[in-house]
Amino acid sequence: MKLTFTGKEIIAGDAEAEGVLARGFFGKAKGGRLLLSPEEALYLVDNRGADCKDGKGKTIPFNSLAQHFSKSPKLLARYLIFKDWRERGLIAKDAKEILGKFSRSAAVNYPNAAPALPHASARGAFFPQDMLTTIDSPEGKILYEQGWFGQFGTYKAAHKGTITKLDAFETLYLIKKGILSIPNSSFKKILSHCERQIRYFNDMYAVYEDWREKGFVIKTGFKFGSHFRVYFPGASPAKEGEWLHSRHVLHVFPRRSKLLISEWARAIRLAHSVKKTFILAVPGKKSRGARTCDFALYHRNGPECENPRTGEPSFLALALTEDEYLGGVEFAKALEECSERGLELVIAIADRETSVTYYLIKKVNLPGSKFDYFEIQWLNP
Amino acid sequence: MKLTFTGKEIIAGDAEAEGVLARGFFGKAKGGRLLLSPEEALYLVDNRGADCKDGKGKTIPFNSLAQHFSKSPKLLARYLIFKDWRERGLIAKDAKEILGKFSRSAAVNYPNAAPALPHASARGAFFPQDMLTTIDSPEGKILYEQGWFGQFGTYKAAHKGTITKLDAFETLYLIKKGILSIPNSSFKKILSHCERQIRYFNDMYAVYEDWREKGFVIKTGFKFGSHFRVYFPGASPAKEGEWLHSRHVLHVFPRRSKLLISEWARAIRLAHSVKKTFILAVPGKKSRGARTCDFALYHRNGPECENPRTGEPSFLALALTEDEYLGGVEFAKALEECSERGLELVIAIADRETSVTYYLIKKVNLPGSKFDYFEIQWLNP
Repeated sequence: MKLTFTGKEIIAGDAEAEGVLARGFFGKAKGGRLLLSPEEALYLVDNRGADCKDGKGKTIPFNSLAQHFSKSPKLLARYLIFKDWRERGLIAKDAKEILGKFSRSAAVNYPNAAPALPHASARGAFFPQDMLTTIDSPEGKILYEQGWFGQFGTYKAAHKGTITKLDAFETLYLIKKGILSIPNSSFKKILSHCERQIRYFNDMYAVYEDWREKGFVIKTGFKFGSHFRVYFPGASPAKEGEWLHSRHVLHVFPRRSKLLISEWARAIRLAHSVKKTFILAVPGKKSRGARTCDFALYHRNGPECENPRTGEPSFLALALTEDEYLGGVEFAKALEECSERGLELVIAIADRETSVTYYLIKKVNLPGSKFDYFEIQWLNP
Repeated sequence: MKLTFTGKEIIAGDAEAEGVLARGFFGKAKGGRLLLSPEEALYLVDNRGADCKDGKGKTIPFNSLAQHFSKSPKLLARYLIFKDWRERGLIAKDAKEILGKFSRSAAVNYPNAAPALPHASARGAFFPQDMLTTIDSPEGKILYEQGWFGQFGTYKAAHKGTITKLDAFETLYLIKKGILSIPNSSFKKILSHCERQIRYFNDMYAVYEDWREKGFVIKTGFKFGSHFRVYFPGASPAKEGEWLHSRHVLHVFPRRSKLLISEWARAIRLAHSVKKTFILAVPGKKSRGARTCDFALYHRNGPECENPRTGEPSFLALALTEDEYLGGVEFAKALEECSERGLELVIAIADRETSVTYYLIKKVNLPGSKFDYFEIQWLNP
């Protein structure tokens, strides 16, 4: 297969190549010629034995061709993800080429209930170094049994011991609700102490409060490697069976933070390994504006692969590498773009060994919330 | 059971209590009295129905007693871990009370081999944005097959494609070894670029080089949520079976960094979930000095629990909570203390719900290395 590099653009080298490429959904027509994107041309040279020649008829090897486009953002990350998608027998196009609105973005609706507030008035002692509150009166047991606040006795053995321990989130929420009082301290003092101890504590508390206010029970997700685990409204430690197993973990991704992709993936993998749904919480005002996704990805439709002639793309994809940082704002903006275009978001991550992992992002509708929440699933295309 | 709070110290309240407590390995004898530590006293009040009275004969409830000792570092974390260990039927003592040297710290010996260096002289192009090098000549395949450097073709499908990709660690190491040249760039330029892109890149490269120099094959650990995965000397992508499965992951913990315990635990949990041995690398000069561990822990010895009368403790334990930060220096110093005392290190973490998780730390002897390495295992006492 012949390709020609004009010094600026790569085009099909002859009529035969043009026919083969167009049938394979490579390139876009422009001024009577078939113009290839850098990742398409690199793929054809690397994997399909294409011969790319310059104006003087000299073959341009892969590295020289790639270096011509080395100013193009994330060239190799994009190339590796394009290649992986193609090798699966699926079609990927530059996101900018696929115009129009589709109807493939589906949100997940979560329930909404009144917060489960215990009928109690408890006094506790807050220990700043440990960020825990202890209650030594019978009210503590009521907080535990009526709203699953804190831990009465011992974890999974409530009959062992007589003291109730509340974590900092529970302490603050119950003070705010007028259910707990801490002599010699206050909501404000405890909040500002915890903010000094834990980065983004404020964001974590805002998420905790948001879900508690909708009737969910939120406990630490330490055992599952996340900030919180989530029980749906109605859960209580006194109930048996299903209710005692959380199926969701919640991880807080502050809008102003930057997270290394490998760290972000670690949290999702761990949730996946314990068969939990991973929910990413992006607290703060919902974002406006757009970020350009890298690819429109066509997926299978029964035994066939969708393609630009017969179908709609399924996903918009962000192409990333394991060593990049992703910001909360960027993330929310990519999702905004997907929502406007009516496509689902896929995050494609090329690791250092060029193996690609895909995550599917679904928007969560938590009724009445001002924040952004997303379910993130590992996707095996 | 009667306890007495003198205003400063808690002691057994009468001869009967003294007998019961001494038989249960609570307290230490001092001036003819049995003196209890704060966590022992809190445990007895919370879990054994002890009645602690002040000088005027008035009962002191749990919270008041705890608040008397609230200046004591990590009071509740220590209490929760003490309680958990006791509830397992095992004995824990304040580490400062157990003197002497023991012979229970066992290091794990790793092999040592000559580095597997390919017989090649390759030229590549480095792409700074992606931090990857591509090689489009046949030398690339030699690097891949003779030393498992980079990825030739596609991950797990080397026959697909003709290009070899090296990550930044591989690129730097091969330049240093004189096997790879990058026209228009250099070891120094690439290193300083990567240091700007990735925090602690320098530390990560030092660890990469250290293991490669001892004949190990080091690849990305992205799929297992760690920095690297490790193959023992002799591994190659051309070999079949066992050699293709790494059993160890390597996580870099820079001495000058501070890691949130919950993040640290996440990496270990993920390694555990994929049945890999987790190795923590603490690059830089080995530490000197000592940090005081919290508890000496006695463990089972057959059906019996060891105790201060019949046996030696098994572990020294650091008591931590999920929201604390642990520094590389502190960690290395705690290990130093254990090594001097001849005990193994256990890290005990109380989560926000007061459930305790234990990790056993074993020193790794990597012959000829200047750095500290540790195997970390989840421990179910």
